[in-house]
Amino acid sequence: MGEIVIVAVDAMGGDNAPVEIIHGAIDAVNAKENIKVILVGKEDVIKKELLNYNFNKDQIEIVHAPDIIETCEPPVMAIRKKKESSLVVALNLVKDKTADAFVSAGSSGAILVGGQLIVGRIKGVERPPLAPLIPTKDGVSLLVDCGANVDARPSHLVQFAKMGSIYMENVMGIKNPTVAIVNIGAEEEKGNQLVKETFPLLKACSDINFIGSIEARDIPNGYADVIVCEAFVGNVILKLYEGLGATLIGKIKEGMMSSFRSKIGALLVKPALKKTLKSFDASEYGGAPLIGLNGLVIKTHGSSKAKEVCNSILQCQKFKEHKINEIIKEIIGKDIVKKEVLNKEVTSNEATSKEE
Amino acid sequence: MGEIVIVAVDAMGGDNAPVEIIHGAIDAVNAKENIKVILVGKEDVIKKELLNYNFNKDQIEIVHAPDIIETCEPPVMAIRKKKESSLVVALNLVKDKTADAFVSAGSSGAILVGGQLIVGRIKGVERPPLAPLIPTKDGVSLLVDCGANVDARPSHLVQFAKMGSIYMENVMGIKNPTVAIVNIGAEEEKGNQLVKETFPLLKACSDINFIGSIEARDIPNGYADVIVCEAFVGNVILKLYEGLGATLIGKIKEGMMSSFRSKIGALLVKPALKKTLKSFDASEYGGAPLIGLNGLVIKTHGSSKAKEVCNSILQCQKFKEHKINEIIKEIIGKDIVKKEVLNKEVTSNEATSKEE
Repeated sequence: MGEIVIVAVDAMGGDNAPVEIIHGAIDAVNAKENIKVILVGKEDVIKKELLNYNFNKDQIEIVHAPDIIETCEPPVMAIRKKKESSLVVALNLVKDKTADAFVSAGSSGAILVGGQLIVGRIKGVERPPLAPLIPTKDGVSLLVDCGANVDARPSHLVQFAKMGSIYMENVMGIKNPTVAIVNIGAEEEKGNQLVKETFPLLKACSDINFIGSIEARDIPNGYADVIVCEAFVGNVILKLYEGLGATLIGKIKEGMMSSFRSKIGALLVKPALKKTLKSFDASEYGGAPLIGLNGLVIKTHGSSKAKEVCNSILQCQKFKEHKINEIIKEIIGKDIVKKEVLNKEVTSNEATSKEE
Repeated sequence: MGEIVIVAVDAMGGDNAPVEIIHGAIDAVNAKENIKVILVGKEDVIKKELLNYNFNKDQIEIVHAPDIIETCEPPVMAIRKKKESSLVVALNLVKDKTADAFVSAGSSGAILVGGQLIVGRIKGVERPPLAPLIPTKDGVSLLVDCGANVDARPSHLVQFAKMGSIYMENVMGIKNPTVAIVNIGAEEEKGNQLVKETFPLLKACSDINFIGSIEARDIPNGYADVIVCEAFVGNVILKLYEGLGATLIGKIKEGMMSSFRSKIGALLVKPALKKTLKSFDASEYGGAPLIGLNGLVIKTHGSSKAKEVCNSILQCQKFKEHKINEIIKEIIGKDIVKKEVLNKEVTSNEATSKEE
C-alpha cells in the first residue's frame, strides 16, 4: 500500500450531482484502500445519499458547505462572494494541505479561476493550462491548453509543452513523449503569429521531445503524445471531438436501424463495436487536470457519471505518487534560475558598456 | 438550357492529376450541356488522357501550360515566377474573362495567393475567405474562413458572415440562413479578443440572420448554416472533421472485423451504413470556393478524385446562375457607401466644430 492520497470532491457540482458524484467517490475508495475522499457539500444531502452504499468509513469524510456555485455565474465574482460554496470550501482544503487534490464537475470557469486564486500557481508557472487526455487511434494524447488561457503568449505555450511532457511521462508512463504544436501546415513558416513565434522556442527546448507542427487531421491518429495549442483552439478541438464523435455514432446507429437486414446485422456487430468505441470514450480517462498549481485540481465533464468521477479520483493518486508537482517545480525552477542569470549578465554588460 | 458557364480546370494540380481531374471534367460536361471546361496543362498529356473518353468536343478545350507549381513551393514566389504554370495560366483565363471560374486540386497556398493577385478582389472586399461546405447531421454548413486569412480582424469576419450568407441562400437555397460565430461558450462575454470584438458587430448587422455563438461541439449538429471564424480555427475544424471521421470509421471497421459473429453482422449492415456515411462525405459537395474575387476560384482537396472535381465544376454553374458576385458587389458596395457617408459626416462635423 502506497502513500495515502486525500481528494476533496465537490459533491454538488455537475449535471448529475450529488448522486453520480458520490457514487464515483465510493467506487474509487472501494477500488483503492490508500485513497481518502472528502465529500464537500450539503451535509444532510450527502449523508442521506451515502446510506445507499457500503464502504470503509475511514476512507470517506464529509465537510459541510451550504452554498453552490452555478454554471451560469460569472466565475471571479462567484469565487469571491460564495465563500461557503462546495467549490470554494473544497479548494481551501487543498490550499491548507488538508487535501492533496480537488475533483469537480462544476462550473469550468469557477474551477479555473478558483484554482489560480485559492490554490495558487507553482512559482514560475505563468499560466496553468487545462489539459485533458483525448482518445486517439491506439491510445491517448494530452491536449494543452484547453480552455484556461485564451490569447496566450509564446512563453506560456513553451511552459505548456514542458508541463505536458512531465504529465505524460510520469502519469501515463510514456517515455520521452513527443510534443507537437497545432498548426495549419507541416512547414515551419506556416501558421499564425503565435505559432510562428512559439515554434523556434519549442525547437530550442532541450528538455522536451519536440517533433514540429501537427495538423488537426493527424491528432486522432495519435501523431504526438503532447499537443500544444492556445486555449481557444484547444477548446475547439476538444469540443469538436466530442460533438463529431457523438454525431457520427448517431448516424451509424441510424444507418443500422434503417432496414430489417441491417437491424439483424446491428445485433451481431453490437458487442464488438461497443468494445472498440469504448476506447474512444473520453470518460475512460478521467477528467482534465489544471497543471501547474500548488496542488492538483481536476475538472471533469459537467455531464460526468460515476465512472468519470471515479477515474478522476484514481488519477490523483498517480499524480501524487509520481511527484508531478515536485518535478514541475524543479524544471520551471531551473528556467527561473537561467532567466535570472541571463538578466544579471545583461545588466552587468549594460553597466560595463556604460562605464566604457 | 441556361447560360453557358466556362470553367478553367487545372489539369496538373493535385495528388491524382491528371487522370482523376480529367475524368471529373468529362463527367461534368457529360452531365450538363451548358458547361464548357478548359483543361489547362501539358497539352500532350491531356490529349492522350482524353482518348479514353467519349464527350462532346465543343465542351472541352485545351490550353497548353508547360509548367507545374508544386505543393511545397512558397506560394507568392511560385505565382510570380512560374508564369507558364497550369495554375497561373488558368487564373489568367478568369482574369481576362475567357473563363467564369477556376477549379484546382493543386497547392492551397498558391491558389489563395494567385486568386487574390491575379483574379483580384471585388471592390470593398477586404479579404476573400475560403469557404468549404462541411457535412452535418442532416445537411451542410458553410465554414468561413478556412485557411485564407490567419490573424483576421473583426471587420473581416463581418464580411465573411455577409458573403457566407449570400452563398448559402443562393447556391444552397437556404432561405435566411442562420449565422453563428465559433466560440468557447454560448455567452456573449466569452471568447478571445477577436470574438469579443466581432460579436457586437455581427449582432448589429441587419442583413444577416445572426444567432450568436456556436461551440465546436454543436457544429456537427447543424446548429448554424454559416459558421464564422478566423482562418486558423477554421482550418483546425475542417481538418479535424476529416481526420476524426476517418479514424472513427476505421475503428468501427476494425471492431466489425474483430470476431466471426461481427463479420457476419458487418455484411448485413454494410449497404445501409454506406448510404448513411455517404451523407457525411465532404467530396459529395465539391470544393471550397474562395469568395469575394472578380470571378470564382474553387479549391478542391489535394486528394480529390473525379467525383469531387466533377461536383466542383457543377458548383460553378450555380454560382454563375445565381449571380453571387453581383449580389456580393451590391451588399459590400452599400457598406462602402455607408462608410463614405459616415466619414464625410465625421469630417464635416470636425470642420464645423473647428469653425466654432
